[in-house]
Amino acid sequence: MSNKQEKDFVKDITKMEDDFAQWYTDVIKKTDLVDYSPVKGFMVIKPYGYALWEGIQSFLDKRFKETGHQNVYFPLLIPESLLNKEKEHVEGFAPEVAWVTHGGSEELAERLCVRPTSETIICSMYSKWLTTYRELPYLYNQWCSVVRWEKATRPFLRTSEFLWQEGHTIHETAEEAQEETLRMLNIYIEMAEELLAIPMVAGRKSDREKFAGAEATYTIEALMHDGKALQSGTSHNLAQHFTKAFDITFQGRTGELEYPHHTSWGCSTRLIGGVIMVHGDNRGLVLPPRLAPIQVVIVPIAQKKEGVLEHVNALYDELKAAGIRVKLDDSTENSPGWKFNEYEMKGVPLRLEVGPRDIENGVMMAARRDTLEKVTLERADAAQTVKALLDTIHYDMLEKARISRDEKTYVVKSYEEFKTKMVETPGFAKAMWCGEEACEAEVKAETGVTIRCIPFEQENLGDTCPFCGKPAKHMVYMAKAY
Amino acid sequence: MSNKQEKDFVKDITKMEDDFAQWYTDVIKKTDLVDYSPVKGFMVIKPYGYALWEGIQSFLDKRFKETGHQNVYFPLLIPESLLNKEKEHVEGFAPEVAWVTHGGSEELAERLCVRPTSETIICSMYSKWLTTYRELPYLYNQWCSVVRWEKATRPFLRTSEFLWQEGHTIHETAEEAQEETLRMLNIYIEMAEELLAIPMVAGRKSDREKFAGAEATYTIEALMHDGKALQSGTSHNLAQHFTKAFDITFQGRTGELEYPHHTSWGCSTRLIGGVIMVHGDNRGLVLPPRLAPIQVVIVPIAQKKEGVLEHVNALYDELKAAGIRVKLDDSTENSPGWKFNEYEMKGVPLRLEVGPRDIENGVMMAARRDTLEKVTLERADAAQTVKALLDTIHYDMLEKARISRDEKTYVVKSYEEFKTKMVETPGFAKAMWCGEEACEAEVKAETGVTIRCIPFEQENLGDTCPFCGKPAKHMVYMAKAY
Repeated sequence: MSNKQEKDFVKDITKMEDDFAQWYTDVIKKTDLVDYSPVKGFMVIKPYGYALWEGIQSFLDKRFKETGHQNVYFPLLIPESLLNKEKEHVEGFAPEVAWVTHGGSEELAERLCVRPTSETIICSMYSKWLTTYRELPYLYNQWCSVVRWEKATRPFLRTSEFLWQEGHTIHETAEEAQEETLRMLNIYIEMAEELLAIPMVAGRKSDREKFAGAEATYTIEALMHDGKALQSGTSHNLAQHFTKAFDITFQGRTGELEYPHHTSWGCSTRLIGGVIMVHGDNRGLVLPPRLAPIQVVIVPIAQKKEGVLEHVNALYDELKAAGIRVKLDDSTENSPGWKFNEYEMKGVPLRLEVGPRDIENGVMMAARRDTLEKVTLERADAAQTVKALLDTIHYDMLEKARISRDEKTYVVKSYEEFKTKMVETPGFAKAMWCGEEACEAEVKAETGVTIRCIPFEQENLGDTCPFCGKPAKHMVYMAKAY
Repeated sequence: MSNKQEKDFVKDITKMEDDFAQWYTDVIKKTDLVDYSPVKGFMVIKPYGYALWEGIQSFLDKRFKETGHQNVYFPLLIPESLLNKEKEHVEGFAPEVAWVTHGGSEELAERLCVRPTSETIICSMYSKWLTTYRELPYLYNQWCSVVRWEKATRPFLRTSEFLWQEGHTIHETAEEAQEETLRMLNIYIEMAEELLAIPMVAGRKSDREKFAGAEATYTIEALMHDGKALQSGTSHNLAQHFTKAFDITFQGRTGELEYPHHTSWGCSTRLIGGVIMVHGDNRGLVLPPRLAPIQVVIVPIAQKKEGVLEHVNALYDELKAAGIRVKLDDSTENSPGWKFNEYEMKGVPLRLEVGPRDIENGVMMAARRDTLEKVTLERADAAQTVKALLDTIHYDMLEKARISRDEKTYVVKSYEEFKTKMVETPGFAKAMWCGEEACEAEVKAETGVTIRCIPFEQENLGDTCPFCGKPAKHMVYMAKAY
C-alpha cells in the first residue's frame, strides 16, 4: 500500500506570477479535473473534467445537427496502406502514430495504426459509397478519441490520446466546400464566445502551419494568461487532395465523372485547457456559467438553527426546477468557510449564502466567482434573479478576457521591437509578413514564435516585412503557442 | 474507378424463412445502417445506424445520472503488466486483444493492449485515489469503443470493435455492490422494454459463462426470430477479485484497512442487432417508436394539387413542435408508392398519407409499420393522436415480441426431447440442471446449446438433471446464441 503514502497531494496552488506551468498543474490536480495514467502521456479525465467536455459536446452536437450534419462512427484502426495514400498526410502523421502489429497471438499481415485523424479511412468509404451529385453533400461527424504519440505532454493541452469530434464533408463544388469550412469555423467561434466566454482571433494558417494534406486550414486562436496562444479549433478546406488520392468520384450534372470537394474540422478536450488558462486565477478555476457543471452552490449558514435547512432546500428545489445546475452543500463535516474556499477553487460561478438573518430579511448573499464581489439578492424571484446574474457573469467574463487579450496584443514594426515584446511581455504580435516560408521558419528558429494566423480582418501596418525587409503581403498574428 | 462496378448492391431482401443470416445482412445493408470497413471485422456505422445508438445512449445516460453515476474517460491503451494482474481476467482476454508495439518509429519497452474492457486500468487508478470509506461509493461510467479480436464477425452482433458503455463502481460493503449490480441490470431491462420494446429473460450466468474475473455475472437475454438467444447486457459483481489484485484499500469505519467491493456493467451496439432480429420482417426493419430516428413520415399524395404542400407542411410543423421526430418527404423524384416501400423498409413506425380528398374530409391515412394496418385519423389534434398511436405501437410491439418468445420457449424434461426441440423448433429450453460445469460443457459440445442464464424466477420442473441424471440444482434457460 506504499502508493498511498506516495500520493501526490497538491496542498496549495502555486501563484501564476511565480510559475505559470506549475499553477496550471496545481489547478487541474487540486480541482480533480484529471489525473496522470500509467501510460506516459495519456490522461484520465475525472468526473468534474469530463462534465466540462460533456458541456462542449452538447453545445456543438446541437449546432452540428441544426446545420444538417449527422453522426457516424468509423473504425479505430487504419491499415498502413490507406494512411500512405495522400503523400503530405502520411509525412505529417506517420512519425506520431501508434502501430498495432498483433491481434491476439497472431502477427498481422499489415500494420494498423490507431487513428490520429480519420480522413483516410473515411475517404476509402466515401469512394465506395458515392455515385451521383444527387447524394451530395455528405455532412458527417464523429465523436471519438485519437492517438498521436507525443514526446512532451500536458493534460488537456497536449496528450498522446485526446477526445475530439471530427467532421468530414464532401461537396459538389469548391464554393460549397469553402462555405462549409467557414461555416464550421464560425460555429467554433460561437461556441467559444457563447459557451466558454473566450474571444477568438480567427484566420487562415500559413502554409507551413496548415494541416497535412489541406489546401487551406482555418483556425481560432485564444490568448492565455501567460501570453501564449492556444490553437482551439481548426477547419480545413481539403479541396480535392484526398478525393483524388482515394478516387472518390460522382456523376456530375453534365454526366461527366467529377471529384468532390472536401472539408474536415475538429475541436478537442484541449479547449478545457484554454478555459483554465484564460479564466483561472490564483484561487483556482473560474468557470464560465454556461459551461460550469455546478452553476450555483448554496451554502447554509448556521444550518442547525430552526428553519434554515428547510429554507435552503426550498431554494434548491426552486433553482433546480428552473433548469439551473445547483448544488446544496449542507454537509456538517465542513464549516461554511471551508466550503467557500472549496467551491471558489472549483470555479463555481455563483455562491449563495443563506443564514437565519437573511431568511428573516427575505434576502440571500451572493458571491460572484469572477469578480469575488458580494451582493445582496432578494429571495423572491430567486430563479429569475440568479439566471440573470449568471448571464451577466458570462458576458463580464467574455469582456474581461477580451480586454486582457487586447492589452497583450501589440503592433510591431521592427524585428527588434518584436523580440523585446515577445520576451518582456508575451502576447500576440500583429505584424506585416512577406508570405515566405523561409522567413517564417527563421523567425521561429530564432525566437520560438510562430505565425498563429493570417486574420480575416486585415490591417495595413506598413509595406515591408519587419523580419526580412521584403515587401509585405499579409498582416499576421504571431505568438508563442501551446 | 472499378470499385463502382463491384459495388455490393443489395437488390432485394432475402426472405427470413429461406435464410435468416442472409436476411439480416440484406436488411442492415439495404437500410444503410452499417457497412464493412477495409479492416476485417471492423464496421462503419452509418448515420441511420448511429442514430439508433444515440437513442440508446441518451436513454441510458439519463438513467445512469439519475442513479448517481458520473461519466469519466480512461485511456484507450493498457500496459500488458496491468492486464496480467488478475489471473482469470488475463486468461479470458489476452487471446483476443490487439497489441500496440510501436509509437511513431520507436519500439515500446512494454506492449500496450487496446482496451478490450477497462477493469484493469480503472482499478490501477482507484488504487491511487481511494483513501477512506467517506469517499465511497465511486459510481463511474464511460462511453467508448473496445477492441476484441474476433475470428467470425457480423455487424453489430460480433465485431472486432464495438461501441459500448462500461460502468465501474466500488462500494464499502458486499451488500451495496450486490445491490448496484442488480440495480444496473434492472436499468438494462427497463431500457430494453421501454425503449427497444424487447422483453428480456434475466438471471445469473453459470460459472462457465461468467465474465473473466467476476464473482457472479448477471445477464439479460433476448430471443431472436430464428430462435437464437442474444446476450444483450451484463452486470458483474466482481467482489474483491480485482480490488485485491490491484491493492485498492480504504480506511474503514473501524480504522482498519479494507478492500472495497466492485461491480462493472456494460451494454453495446450489439443491442441494435437485437432490435433488427426481434422486430424485423421480410419488408425490412421494424423500429420501435421510441428508438426510431424517424417516428413518422408524411407522404403527400397528388402533391402538385393546390393546397396539398401547404397542408402537409403545416402538419409537419405541428408534429415537430410537439417533439415528434417527423420527416416530410415531398421530393418529386419518387412516386408515393416508391416512398411507401422505402420507409417501410427503413422501419419508420408510422406513415401519414395526405391527399386532396383527405384534406377535404379533415382526415389523414395512417399506416402502421408493425401491423401494416391502415387507419383513418382525424386531422384535428394530429399531434396528440399521433403520440398516442406511437405509444400503442410501442406496447403492441413489446407484447408481440413477448408472445413470439413465449411460443418458442419449451419446458424440456429429457435430453432427447431437448435435442429434438433445439433442432426442429429452436428457442429457449427451460430445463433443470445439476449445476456442474462438466455436464454443461458436454451438452454444449454435443448440441452447440449453452446455458443462457439461471433465471431469477425459478420453477421446479423435476428433481434430476435431464442431461446427466444427477440431482437437479437450478432451473435454467438454454439456447443456441449469437
